[in-house]
Amino acid sequence: MVIVMGPEATSAHVATVVGVVQSAGVEAFVSKGVQRTIVGLVGDVTQLDAASLRGMAGVRDVMRVSTPYKLVSRENHPERSTVHVSGVPIGPGTVTLIAGPCAVETPEQTLDAARMAQAAGATLLRGGAYKPRTSPYAFQGLGEAGLRILADVRERTGLPIVTEVVEAQDVPLVASYVDMLQVGTRNAQNFGLLQAVGAAGKPVLLKRGMSSTMEEWLMAAEYIAQRGNLDVVLCERGIRTFETATRNTLDVSAVPVAQRLSHLPVIVDPSHSGGRRDLVLPLSRAAIAAGADGVIIDVHPRPEQALCDGPQALVDTDLGELAQVMRDFPPLLGKTAAAALTV
Amino acid sequence: MVIVMGPEATSAHVATVVGVVQSAGVEAFVSKGVQRTIVGLVGDVTQLDAASLRGMAGVRDVMRVSTPYKLVSRENHPERSTVHVSGVPIGPGTVTLIAGPCAVETPEQTLDAARMAQAAGATLLRGGAYKPRTSPYAFQGLGEAGLRILADVRERTGLPIVTEVVEAQDVPLVASYVDMLQVGTRNAQNFGLLQAVGAAGKPVLLKRGMSSTMEEWLMAAEYIAQRGNLDVVLCERGIRTFETATRNTLDVSAVPVAQRLSHLPVIVDPSHSGGRRDLVLPLSRAAIAAGADGVIIDVHPRPEQALCDGPQALVDTDLGELAQVMRDFPPLLGKTAAAALTV
Amino acid sequence: MVIVMGPEATSAHVATVVGVVQSAGVEAFVSKGVQRTIVGLVGDVTQLDAASLRGMAGVRDVMRVSTPYKLVSRENHPERSTVHVSGVPIGPGTVTLIAGPCAVETPEQTLDAARMAQAAGATLLRGGAYKPRTSPYAFQGLGEAGLRILADVRERTGLPIVTEVVEAQDVPLVASYVDMLQVGTRNAQNFGLLQAVGAAGKPVLLKRGMSSTMEEWLMAAEYIAQRGNLDVVLCERGIRTFETATRNTLDVSAVPVAQRLSHLPVIVDPSHSGGRRDLVLPLSRAAIAAGADGVIIDVHPRPEQALCDGPQALVDTDLGELAQVMRDFPPLLGKTAAAALTV
Amino acid sequence: MVIVMGPEATSAHVATVVGVVQSAGVEAFVSKGVQRTIVGLVGDVTQLDAASLRGMAGVRDVMRVSTPYKLVSRENHPERSTVHVSGVPIGPGTVTLIAGPCAVETPEQTLDAARMAQAAGATLLRGGAYKPRTSPYAFQGLGEAGLRILADVRERTGLPIVTEVVEAQDVPLVASYVDMLQVGTRNAQNFGLLQAVGAAGKPVLLKRGMSSTMEEWLMAAEYIAQRGNLDVVLCERGIRTFETATRNTLDVSAVPVAQRLSHLPVIVDPSHSGGRRDLVLPLSRAAIAAGADGVIIDVHPRPEQALCDGPQALVDTDLGELAQVMRDFPPLLGKTAAAALTV
Repeated sequence: MVIVMGPEATSAHVATVVGVVQSAGVEAFVSKGVQRTIVGLVGDVTQLDAASLRGMAGVRDVMRVSTPYKLVSRENHPERSTVHVSGVPIGPGTVTLIAGPCAVETPEQTLDAARMAQAAGATLLRGGAYKPRTSPYAFQGLGEAGLRILADVRERTGLPIVTEVVEAQDVPLVASYVDMLQVGTRNAQNFGLLQAVGAAGKPVLLKRGMSSTMEEWLMAAEYIAQRGNLDVVLCERGIRTFETATRNTLDVSAVPVAQRLSHLPVIVDPSHSGGRRDLVLPLSRAAIAAGADGVIIDVHPRPEQALCDGPQALVDTDLGELAQVMRDFPPLLGKTAAAALTV
Repeated sequence: MVIVMGPEATSAHVATVVGVVQSAGVEAFVSKGVQRTIVGLVGDVTQLDAASLRGMAGVRDVMRVSTPYKLVSRENHPERSTVHVSGVPIGPGTVTLIAGPCAVETPEQTLDAARMAQAAGATLLRGGAYKPRTSPYAFQGLGEAGLRILADVRERTGLPIVTEVVEAQDVPLVASYVDMLQVGTRNAQNFGLLQAVGAAGKPVLLKRGMSSTMEEWLMAAEYIAQRGNLDVVLCERGIRTFETATRNTLDVSAVPVAQRLSHLPVIVDPSHSGGRRDLVLPLSRAAIAAGADGVIIDVHPRPEQALCDGPQALVDTDLGELAQVMRDFPPLLGKTAAAALTV
Repeated sequence: MVIVMGPEATSAHVATVVGVVQSAGVEAFVSKGVQRTIVGLVGDVTQLDAASLRGMAGVRDVMRVSTPYKLVSRENHPERSTVHVSGVPIGPGTVTLIAGPCAVETPEQTLDAARMAQAAGATLLRGGAYKPRTSPYAFQGLGEAGLRILADVRERTGLPIVTEVVEAQDVPLVASYVDMLQVGTRNAQNFGLLQAVGAAGKPVLLKRGMSSTMEEWLMAAEYIAQRGNLDVVLCERGIRTFETATRNTLDVSAVPVAQRLSHLPVIVDPSHSGGRRDLVLPLSRAAIAAGADGVIIDVHPRPEQALCDGPQALVDTDLGELAQVMRDFPPLLGKTAAAALTV
Repeated sequence: MVIVMGPEATSAHVATVVGVVQSAGVEAFVSKGVQRTIVGLVGDVTQLDAASLRGMAGVRDVMRVSTPYKLVSRENHPERSTVHVSGVPIGPGTVTLIAGPCAVETPEQTLDAARMAQAAGATLLRGGAYKPRTSPYAFQGLGEAGLRILADVRERTGLPIVTEVVEAQDVPLVASYVDMLQVGTRNAQNFGLLQAVGAAGKPVLLKRGMSSTMEEWLMAAEYIAQRGNLDVVLCERGIRTFETATRNTLDVSAVPVAQRLSHLPVIVDPSHSGGRRDLVLPLSRAAIAAGADGVIIDVHPRPEQALCDGPQALVDTDLGELAQVMRDFPPLLGKTAAAALTV
């Protein structure tokens, strides 16, 4: 941590700051310049609050020089991690395809979508039973009935299940049905939920908040990790910007950046990023080419009847092209499609 | 609702769209232009999903022409509402000052802050017992012990209490202690929490999400209203933009815009918007001048020791100026400072 | 400047960095921590390029601790400046109203608008003869014919003129007609134009770029100042954000922030910020209340016939209210309406 | 165009709107609904100003249903275009690599960088002689001396040259030296410059403004096209968002979106998007995988000595990997690396 004093700071201001720092057991090195005095801190600064230091008289700025997340950081864990979801790997050696319907609507629709997913090379099934919707008048998901459908489809297809959980109190129930818990973008800073999924003993798919910085996203992962769960997969799903041509702006740079800062696997959701069917394949290619460890994609047997996000779901005629992407691109990145590993 | 067909749309495409619309009991008026065909819908369109229509063959765009929020909209409720918090009004006739510490730390600190608030003209006390923090290593609030401190300070000062609740399961407990429940920016789309506070029988202070559009913010209020609670106060607290000179960017236009779209009162949080003490007073003046029905402000007796957001809290020497703002500005807007009404 | 070395940096890396720094005549203080080494620089760092240092082996981050703008900074010029435009002051002691039509269309329309402006208390006339328009098919302004109209209206009303110039080569011509040159938001980083207006010998109204950070805005002012012209007035006019309810998002915090960082006057354009007539008065009040040294407002005698931005122009029936704002608000901020000074 | 009347609109309001529309020679179809009246316009609406209509009494909203850009739109020109730069194609059949130094510094540095570019498969040389810099104290480019160096290097390497021009008055001089003119992000709405390059008779590389919407970007291209020049290549180079982990946020979705809206080729600048060397290759792969028709990349023989943007330049040891990207990825997209075509 570096404390920059303002030009108006007196020796007394500097001395007070140094005192506060030292009383927290941290060493302070003072460099006096022509215009500014800089106080460099060395030691364990976790007990020092940057914001409070910034509020002290004479202080102009406080700059952190180490990362605030520890458990998910790559600094102390240089090797990238692989998370296993009921045997399916997500990590540096593979490109995993997770696919399925945005929302579970009926047993038939879910099974049909799962078959589509499988045909395209998916090794994990996604599907929402609890849907966070902007409008209280929109379809909110089938709840536990949806979880039962998912479990039944898993039995028939062999695909482990990823599903979203939206409330801390639902975590035990949802975890009892599924293989991986998803935390959605609107709950990216719902800390109670993060702690609950951290304690649930299942891998977690953590979507980036639509306006989360890289650091906030990793701090959200740290909340999960702190409860003893390091099986966290980060998922970039588009951020909110001024551009309205797409539903969100896919921040494809987030893939290599997050992989350098954290050891956790990083995947991409091209369906929710773009919000348009015609963007799903180009963005899937881009994600994998940028190094993503997987993609999660909406598919629907009859999207015009979908109760949620139909316009972004891939349909039957797209599956061949998706399968081709999954076959051609991973090897160029030195990766295998996850399907190959599990067969 | 207006459906715009693309230049490639055939008569069959148009007929299919019209069929879907009519089967939902809605009338469809078709206007054929040189380049485009437009289908205007008349009737109750709540059962039609814009996104699904957009996914139909030949459809280029679907535009809503009425608001998706009904209960909080000003269209059906032209007169602006006043919400009463244990007798204290927040609404079009007044400018209410809510003040107190960001976090409840000790009984002494809370009481001192409440006295400061009162000296500046506050008629409601703010104070956090449950603190959503970006870092799992930061102070997370005292929980129920904090609520007890707040209740005790209310008894000694007579100030009704506003406090944040962060999890649906905590709502009954928190509601049993306090006068108004606050939903914070990170939970602006935590729909389970919104429904829980909607059912709790206490007025709600709903902060805007840091990346919520005007429509998303009002839809969040609609979630609360739909559970039978129309005592909702909207609070603008800064949005996330590219600018880093301030912690967030206060969207002061949101005050008149929200007041035109909704009948609910709208207040501003200048402390969290700017994140800097020296901005609190200028932004408070700006908020009131823009027509805000109140402001909510951090004050702290010893901000350099604050466990949360110390650098943005007003201190003793700022109170005279704040009191002056509360005295001078409301009359220019045809409003009274709320204090005057309750004495 | 502070250079933070990465955890992987060797002693050789640090030595190389120190060598580069010292060869630029700057002192380097090295603080070795447990995880990081920090190099604090003291001296004249203007010859060091932060970006190049950041590219050196072992360097993790380079942080500037002093401002990159010198001439417009308040650090070396603590007293806030007043700019005089043909006798009309813009600065800390006053609130100046600049008003007029967005675009000069006809002599009658311009004269009528100028009379409206004057009736509301304006002491400077705005009006565009060169209009930068998003579409090549939109009205682009009358050019020199418009300047002649403005000069004629100045003669009849006594109001000095502010007008936009969009190309460096037009600066001498425009400067020969008008009292103050405006640089628009789309040219906020058109450095050739900034240098040309810097050399023209007339005061400059510098609008903030729609995505300019505070620092970029002040650097644009520095370009003008560097050519010997310190008569620069900064104008906040709304920034680009995700919110679409308003044309731009007025960053009202920019007023006090820019006034703390720079000695230059800061005014606000509420017309272009909101893009809606019904927001102009609330945002004008907010701007003045935040401490703005003036506001610049579109007025039009017949806005439904306006060739540019009609929907945001104030009309006859708004003028009384605007005049009242100019009378009531400045005294609360310890300021005078500029009109009073010039009469 | 569709005009939505507000719930308060009277029959007289509707009649006035219809009158204005019809007097512009456009047909108006009125649909009266329960809550709203909608006026659909059919015919040539280019003479109607949406903003002015929006300002009329009773009007709630005006929605365009056709694109405002005509010449660059794909609607009237379904086949995607190929632009040839002195024989080198940029278009749907190829992936073109443009590489070179950010700034021309010396003959040696430029020649070395050109050799590096060529080794990696580049068929066009980039290099800046006029550099728009945020700070007036930063290196601004060598000007005409830099152009001479570029021309000399072209003679020695055979690589046609792309260079930025920053002022309209410089266009004839720059065009006399180089093969393709670049308009930079800060000049994306410098309309005089756009018109000047439109008239210069050379292909144009048009970077997207850092806060330009898709529509504004295409309107900028329309400015060039309107002067008779359809040899325009669009270049996505990152947009400004809240995320600070990268210099800009590469909007990779802009590639397929722009290609659907416009027939012009679309390339990507991964160097300026990310601003970091370690992101250049991942983002290049992502861009090509998303369907980009080329990439433009900074290379520098000695980046630690670069006068501009050294930290983002690729170095010698990166070239093999870049060449491999150019060899492996284009075939997966059904494209050829442009090099193959020109040999």
